[in-house]
Amino acid sequence: MLFVRNVAKLKKIIKQKKNQNVTIGFVPTMGYLHEGHLSLIRIARKKCQFLAVSIFVNPIQFGPKEDFKKYPRNLKKDLRMLKDEGVDLVFYPSVKDMYPADYKTSVYVKELSKILCGASRPHHFQGVTTIVLKLLNVVQPDIMAFGKKDFQQAIIIKKMVEDLHLDVKITMGKIIREKDGLALSSRNIYLSKTQRKNAVVLHESLKWAKQAFKKGLRNPKETIKRMKMTIKEKNGRIDYVEAVDPCTLQPVKKLQKGTLIALAAFFGKTRLIDNTIL
Amino acid sequence: MLFVRNVAKLKKIIKQKKNQNVTIGFVPTMGYLHEGHLSLIRIARKKCQFLAVSIFVNPIQFGPKEDFKKYPRNLKKDLRMLKDEGVDLVFYPSVKDMYPADYKTSVYVKELSKILCGASRPHHFQGVTTIVLKLLNVVQPDIMAFGKKDFQQAIIIKKMVEDLHLDVKITMGKIIREKDGLALSSRNIYLSKTQRKNAVVLHESLKWAKQAFKKGLRNPKETIKRMKMTIKEKNGRIDYVEAVDPCTLQPVKKLQKGTLIALAAFFGKTRLIDNTIL
Repeated sequence: MLFVRNVAKLKKIIKQKKNQNVTIGFVPTMGYLHEGHLSLIRIARKKCQFLAVSIFVNPIQFGPKEDFKKYPRNLKKDLRMLKDEGVDLVFYPSVKDMYPADYKTSVYVKELSKILCGASRPHHFQGVTTIVLKLLNVVQPDIMAFGKKDFQQAIIIKKMVEDLHLDVKITMGKIIREKDGLALSSRNIYLSKTQRKNAVVLHESLKWAKQAFKKGLRNPKETIKRMKMTIKEKNGRIDYVEAVDPCTLQPVKKLQKGTLIALAAFFGKTRLIDNTIL
Repeated sequence: MLFVRNVAKLKKIIKQKKNQNVTIGFVPTMGYLHEGHLSLIRIARKKCQFLAVSIFVNPIQFGPKEDFKKYPRNLKKDLRMLKDEGVDLVFYPSVKDMYPADYKTSVYVKELSKILCGASRPHHFQGVTTIVLKLLNVVQPDIMAFGKKDFQQAIIIKKMVEDLHLDVKITMGKIIREKDGLALSSRNIYLSKTQRKNAVVLHESLKWAKQAFKKGLRNPKETIKRMKMTIKEKNGRIDYVEAVDPCTLQPVKKLQKGTLIALAAFFGKTRLIDNTIL
């Protein structure tokens, strides 16, 4: 497994692979890998000949009061896991190389970036699209995998790829959960024992919404109200619970098959997200 | 000479060229070509095996009160000129194909985009960087040529290319002028006979600044004041006259070799730009 820190060196390797007509797969991550990341790596592994994974905690997608500094990192463990998955190359750039002092360029996908998670994290998705475009230009993959837990992120990146005429194909991997249903996230490590137990309510409220929909509940307001109540009962502080169209991310007036129910809530200082498709 | 309107078709052609290791040159234009464009085409022609030119009047780089609708167009004449120059491919996309109804993505180079021309045309450079990135992703050129008349534009695009790790090399062609010194521009056609005569003052004021610098004038304020006076005497309405660092575009405190003197002024409703390097 190649370990590359430098953009120019990576470009050289990629150029060789391209010249040999090797198909390239790519999974961008912020490290501190869990089964969610590994599931994406396994999907991508099957679809390409050369698989690159990046580990980069991207400062510009964190707000000034968010957890950039304390975001969990464990490079050694990550590398062991990636090697075990048969990854061919790990790209681990420095913040200084990605954003030198005179760095000035950003990419923005309007409308989609300011709703849901974007409403409470105003510069988050601009940070995500900017780093993903930079990485895409270096790695030049044929396929790239994103997880459905960050559903909005995947939709925004798909839109950017389409609008900018990029060639990469985007695959979405399903949400991987703990046994009790909590969606895997590197941030779960922040949770206290009680918070960890309470956080299961996120998935439970989504399961309830799905059940209720099956039994005939079509009113998004009613569904959202009930979900919020349930989450608050477990000391979750709601950021948002919304029922939206899975492509435009705009609120729906009536629930239907395919509607995305997405939510974010704080347990203590830890903000968790989850979602389901009806 | 190939004439292509469709992105997918162009991508297919480019892919073939790439597979054959053919070097690709690119000159993006808004059409209504003049010797300024042709000089760039000749520079690019010498540096590549396959030369593509785009003609696209890019709506998003015009302000709501600017001249998008009346911007001069003459496709037939343009195509004749491009054929004569040995251009291999002309890309002439529709506005609808470049910006479909659900288009959402933009690229912005901060600081550099809000000064000089950006101060009076606030969304202009965002429009320029967005279309250039889109075109770069489709044409994938090895080299691309821009004119020094739009000096700020070239600097901003260079910054975007660097920040986004794009591989294209940017060449800058010198300003091409009429016999009396007026910089060539598709917009010169808007000028009345009197305005056309008066507009020569732009180049004359720049020539004066250069002469004065040679004779020892180092004070930018004094230089700018004198230039503004001269332009106003010929009924030019000043947008800006500035002496700046040619890389950062920030005002200099003392003129020196390499300083960029850049200006924009209106003659009637027509906004003209020009510049020189000391």
